[in-house]
Amino acid sequence: MVRVAIVCAYDGSGFRGFARQQGLRTVQGEIEGALERLARDPIVTVGAGRTDSGVHARHQVLHADVPERIAAEPPALCRRLQAITGRDLTVYAVSGVSKEFDARFSALERCYHYLVDDRPFPDPLLRHTVAAWPHPVSVSRMRAGAKTLLGTHDFSAFCRPRPGQSLVREVRRLAIERREGLVSFRVDANAFLHQMVRRVVGLLLEVGDGYREPEEVAEVLEGKDRSRSSRIAHPEGLTLIEVRYPARFHIPSPL
Amino acid sequence: MVRVAIVCAYDGSGFRGFARQQGLRTVQGEIEGALERLARDPIVTVGAGRTDSGVHARHQVLHADVPERIAAEPPALCRRLQAITGRDLTVYAVSGVSKEFDARFSALERCYHYLVDDRPFPDPLLRHTVAAWPHPVSVSRMRAGAKTLLGTHDFSAFCRPRPGQSLVREVRRLAIERREGLVSFRVDANAFLHQMVRRVVGLLLEVGDGYREPEEVAEVLEGKDRSRSSRIAHPEGLTLIEVRYPARFHIPSPL
Repeated sequence: MVRVAIVCAYDGSGFRGFARQQGLRTVQGEIEGALERLARDPIVTVGAGRTDSGVHARHQVLHADVPERIAAEPPALCRRLQAITGRDLTVYAVSGVSKEFDARFSALERCYHYLVDDRPFPDPLLRHTVAAWPHPVSVSRMRAGAKTLLGTHDFSAFCRPRPGQSLVREVRRLAIERREGLVSFRVDANAFLHQMVRRVVGLLLEVGDGYREPEEVAEVLEGKDRSRSSRIAHPEGLTLIEVRYPARFHIPSPL
Repeated sequence: MVRVAIVCAYDGSGFRGFARQQGLRTVQGEIEGALERLARDPIVTVGAGRTDSGVHARHQVLHADVPERIAAEPPALCRRLQAITGRDLTVYAVSGVSKEFDARFSALERCYHYLVDDRPFPDPLLRHTVAAWPHPVSVSRMRAGAKTLLGTHDFSAFCRPRPGQSLVREVRRLAIERREGLVSFRVDANAFLHQMVRRVVGLLLEVGDGYREPEEVAEVLEGKDRSRSSRIAHPEGLTLIEVRYPARFHIPSPL
């Protein structure tokens, strides 16, 4: 058996998330199914980020140990996987990696992008990848609120509680800007908690539209505000755009 | 009764085309249904362009004669229509017009945009509005073939035959370029025949990927080539981006 890294992009609308679930169409399930057809044996994969139902990816990375005969030429394996998966899931690179590589634990950083259309008449042609927000938002208010989230914090206020798990993460970048009428959020962190990006964006949008004050972001982060929960931003606006690894693994870049 | 112009945009994926059809979800059917709910009487609309099943629009224009009480304030009527229609159909402007205005017959020009992804691994996040083409295409070959289509011609080779109907149209612009890895076609004409843009694009893509020669476009246009039919390009890549009217009607601009 040899280890391969598999890089893919997907439109999350037709998947019940990334992680395999018995009887449901998921990204990992589709890729494992395709590998099983080629290897004629069940193959287990490990993914970099477990995106939720409806969330997209331009650069999702998995690793798997596969029989040498199907991985002798990684570009050929990539084309065969691509031929099996559908138009909403593109396997665009496969590369041989050392056994030391782990798609989840070797990752140094994950980068997400969230897009919002806050115009009174949201563009229907963007609805698959951009979330509509019913009120115009102020980018400067959201930036003022976002500052407090940068750095290393316990982000338990931004995920479902999971006892015993460390909820400390390091947010390295949180950039908010307006581009061609849309609002774009870019969030990079060493790793993310479940629903963390969507909870952060949901809170910031409430700051942006005036329902909350920028100072309240710090109160939420410090756990002083458990009474008022924010909206979790819709999944369709969210895309995993890159997973970064040490250069020695030579993982292919995003599409 | 007063006449209004209704301007809308839609993602065509969920519609069986623009034109009303008994029992099927169509754009015209949705808008007439919404008008009927507000007017409490059936309302007939006339549209500028009958887009096919799966084809999108950023600027589709309709006219209708509606009771004065619901059209007293066009922006209010627009918001009410918008509230009724779904996320895949946005009514973004309503304006009062003279009885002389006809959404179909007053139109001076229609402009369409067609997007193609000819990369070996088409981006799944663009699949709703960009058509995948399985081979890389040459823009210069397509431009060479397209030149012959400019101007006033009988375009019967590019539509289903309809006896007794004039099939002469004037193509005023046919621009092809590569932008951010995609191939974009822009076609403006006084009016279009049924499936004309998709048949033109289908033929040009075959020229672009080397299956046909640029000179064959003239042969097809002149009707000397009926033996070999070209592919009709898929609907998801096509968007009606603008319908132009005489300035005196003050029809709202595209989104």
